[in-house]
Amino acid sequence: MRFDIISANPDILQSPLNYGLISRARVKGYIETYIHNLRDYAEGSYKQIDDEPYGGGAGMILKAEPFFRVIKELLGEREYDDIIYFSAQGEILNQKLANQLSLKKNFILLCGHYKGIDERVIERYVTKEISIGEYVLSCGDLAALVLIDAISRLIPGVLHDGESAITDTFQTEEVFDCAYYTRPEIIDDMKVPSVLLSGNHSAIEQWRRESAKQKLQKYIELNENKFLISELKKNKEQI
Amino acid sequence: MRFDIISANPDILQSPLNYGLISRARVKGYIETYIHNLRDYAEGSYKQIDDEPYGGGAGMILKAEPFFRVIKELLGEREYDDIIYFSAQGEILNQKLANQLSLKKNFILLCGHYKGIDERVIERYVTKEISIGEYVLSCGDLAALVLIDAISRLIPGVLHDGESAITDTFQTEEVFDCAYYTRPEIIDDMKVPSVLLSGNHSAIEQWRRESAKQKLQKYIELNENKFLISELKKNKEQI
Repeated sequence: MRFDIISANPDILQSPLNYGLISRARVKGYIETYIHNLRDYAEGSYKQIDDEPYGGGAGMILKAEPFFRVIKELLGEREYDDIIYFSAQGEILNQKLANQLSLKKNFILLCGHYKGIDERVIERYVTKEISIGEYVLSCGDLAALVLIDAISRLIPGVLHDGESAITDTFQTEEVFDCAYYTRPEIIDDMKVPSVLLSGNHSAIEQWRRESAKQKLQKYIELNENKFLISELKKNKEQI
Repeated sequence: MRFDIISANPDILQSPLNYGLISRARVKGYIETYIHNLRDYAEGSYKQIDDEPYGGGAGMILKAEPFFRVIKELLGEREYDDIIYFSAQGEILNQKLANQLSLKKNFILLCGHYKGIDERVIERYVTKEISIGEYVLSCGDLAALVLIDAISRLIPGVLHDGESAITDTFQTEEVFDCAYYTRPEIIDDMKVPSVLLSGNHSAIEQWRRESAKQKLQKYIELNENKFLISELKKNKEQI
């Protein structure tokens, strides 16, 4: 799997690509990541990558030309499954989408400033606009890192043995993860539930199912009606 | 605002804290970030921070003791508004929650491995479990960076003049951002909508409202019923 990341802030990307799971996936040869500095594709001695929006208003907009140049160059070299632009207005990333994307091969990831990029980049090239959640970030780079991490760990071989992603929360509709405990048995008067020390596998299994059920219940209570889309819909009806 | 980040992979955090918006907020003195390496709080010559789960099963669990030690140390030094643990089972981060958190002062952020931490850390210390979205990541560090970015940019003074977060998508219920264009007027035969060049402010305003409305419509179409919580709920009813 190959990620070509086009960024106006490439320095931000360095350490998460070079440590932890993404680095492991790279070293093992499961993924390749290439950073393209938008500024290298800008014209003139100022290497200007952003400009004021037509029609006025606050905030600077990333110019179309540098994106067009680097995307054309990359498309001339190989085929891409998706050209992804990160924005708060895109398709919400969830585990299902991550699963789908983990079966693909080549991605171009466009990281914008928070205010946005020239719409023509999206119209001409972007095949998927993705949002990692209903909140605004300063730039798309953190979103790109989140996506790369979420996808890479699903590629068979990237996780250690026994770390299989199959039992992840969200990964199947039946599974929500339970509470876990490890040594020591007692810390500050807090004990590990005794059933987990019993060696009784069916009792442990049952305890875990119950624990996962409680976690799921808490998750639903926390997040029911939490998604802003329902409010946005209501509001739209009022417009 | 102060963030104490407790991490098993502190190297991952470096570049996003030192470049871009988070760095700007730090340099301007609006936020302070401190990284605490979990391994520095582990015992023995192996500095073991994880161990097998009681009751068996795949994956390693981060031990409670190193967390207890560093959290106690920090709580002895100052008061914290929230001790946040990042997990896929937490309260979903959205712009409203980011707004609320941006009014607070001191945070401890606990970054786990994806498989989890000893539940006693959550029971004893965690005041908020936060999920940045319905997907699984390899560790909480990227989630911590996302949270710090989303909150920091809301602190008055962090964004440049004219970058006010007030007009963000999600920031108010009325506003969804419109399409933007910047120079040049034509690129690869793609023209900027002529109204934006007209200088007619009320026409521009109207075009932008219409564009935002279209974006909102697209967002709703993309994401309606997209949240996994509805499926999890259905499934729960079947359990």
